[in-house]
Amino acid sequence: MSNTITKQSINYEAATKMVAAAITKAVELGCRQNAAVVDIGGRLVAFGSMDGALILGIEGCQRKAFTSLFGVGTEDLYAALKDDPSLVHGLSHFTNATFVGGGLPIIIDGEVVGGIGVGGGTVEEDVACSQAGIDALA
Amino acid sequence: MSNTITKQSINYEAATKMVAAAITKAVELGCRQNAAVVDIGGRLVAFGSMDGALILGIEGCQRKAFTSLFGVGTEDLYAALKDDPSLVHGLSHFTNATFVGGGLPIIIDGEVVGGIGVGGGTVEEDVACSQAGIDALA
Amino acid sequence: MSNTITKQSINYEAATKMVAAAITKAVELGCRQNAAVVDIGGRLVAFGSMDGALILGIEGCQRKAFTSLFGVGTEDLYAALKDDPSLVHGLSHFTNATFVGGGLPIIIDGEVVGGIGVGGGTVEEDVACSQAGIDALA
Amino acid sequence: MSNTITKQSINYEAATKMVAAAITKAVELGCRQNAAVVDIGGRLVAFGSMDGALILGIEGCQRKAFTSLFGVGTEDLYAALKDDPSLVHGLSHFTNATFVGGGLPIIIDGEVVGGIGVGGGTVEEDVACSQAGIDALA
Repeated sequence: MSNTITKQSINYEAATKMVAAAITKAVELGCRQNAAVVDIGGRLVAFGSMDGALILGIEGCQRKAFTSLFGVGTEDLYAALKDDPSLVHGLSHFTNATFVGGGLPIIIDGEVVGGIGVGGGTVEEDVACSQAGIDALA
Repeated sequence: MSNTITKQSINYEAATKMVAAAITKAVELGCRQNAAVVDIGGRLVAFGSMDGALILGIEGCQRKAFTSLFGVGTEDLYAALKDDPSLVHGLSHFTNATFVGGGLPIIIDGEVVGGIGVGGGTVEEDVACSQAGIDALA
Repeated sequence: MSNTITKQSINYEAATKMVAAAITKAVELGCRQNAAVVDIGGRLVAFGSMDGALILGIEGCQRKAFTSLFGVGTEDLYAALKDDPSLVHGLSHFTNATFVGGGLPIIIDGEVVGGIGVGGGTVEEDVACSQAGIDALA
Repeated sequence: MSNTITKQSINYEAATKMVAAAITKAVELGCRQNAAVVDIGGRLVAFGSMDGALILGIEGCQRKAFTSLFGVGTEDLYAALKDDPSLVHGLSHFTNATFVGGGLPIIIDGEVVGGIGVGGGTVEEDVACSQAGIDALA
């Protein structure tokens, strides 16, 4: 189609499966999580908040999912930028951005098609649950 | 326990089932919906956005779910208040409120325990899908 | 690609051409306009503000472009909904939404691929300039 | 005219040329950028987002352009203030401000008349593209 670009974006069915897988992992780890998947336009596709999950994580997991559209996990993004405080301070203030670990890009056939974010546990737990969401697509 | 109140709130499992039922209804009706369930504290518990659903409905369904914590559906709320412009204009400006139909309170044993909202179709479709979510709890 | 949906979205080159055409039309009409094009995800792709254009129109044109993702122009949307005040009041408060005329969906091969909005003149001027943007794609 | 001041501000034609030059530079560098020019009142005059550019950069480039109204590039601003955490933390929280490099003031005849910001690449790429925008005025 002329005048347009074609974008691949995570679909509803896959996003729902990812959130469910992240929360299944949280049950296994014994933590209580919020999980979100955003599409290629940064819009929320699927979300779930476990009973007793931290309210702060509702926003947190959405920021993580959004920020991972960078194409790199939020934890790795921080590791790459941490020695430049202008970036650490700067990007932290962007709407929907965060450097807190637990966001991972959804990459299919080498292309970013969305992001998943999990918040409510330790960073290690958050990352493990996000990864479980990613693994659910395999 | 003294100094506390006990709150009954829709849980994750039920909220997820409600969103799924609302979207199953949308498939049946041939519309593309966004659906959200909020808990007794007005916080998002479950959310889903069908492929191709209106972006405006992402915010819309969350506003509807939130507003239905009033204990009455958003459509009925408007009908009850429409002759008092101070209420119509006033409430419309509150963060997360809306009078657009498609939000229904989740009432269990006579008690409001959360709200569901659906947005993206006609008001009739939105209400039918929200109702399907409510019915999934029966 | 499995797990994804394919979206067609207005591209940068076409969006820039649309803004330029809207502003060329404004020069012809003798008004001073702000013009914006958003993509299928509701994100800003191109924007221009003529010398002396109303500051209010900077936000206005972006709201119009965003709202037109509904698939219908903002003026026609209002005409369709104006007899239901719950919708008029309700939708007007959604972030980035407006019923002010001057927003038009960008439809290519029967599919909405973005939206254009123009603000700063009379509604007639705004609509004429948005239409000139649409016509530039022909 | 008494009771008024005269402001020199970047005009629409020049701002559009600057955004185009920044994006031409991005094509040359092989990166995908968002570019914005704001006027002396801090209002958006011209904006463009290349196909596939980072969504975070849409907000980022506008913050950079706005902050450069300080009269100094955002990268240099950070370098000047970095040893005073009250300034680093304080300014980072202001609406539309950022210390991320890639914003440059537009200075004509020794006077700040606007700002340009570019976001979506590395800081080096962002600065190079902003500078290309500035150079387009020569």
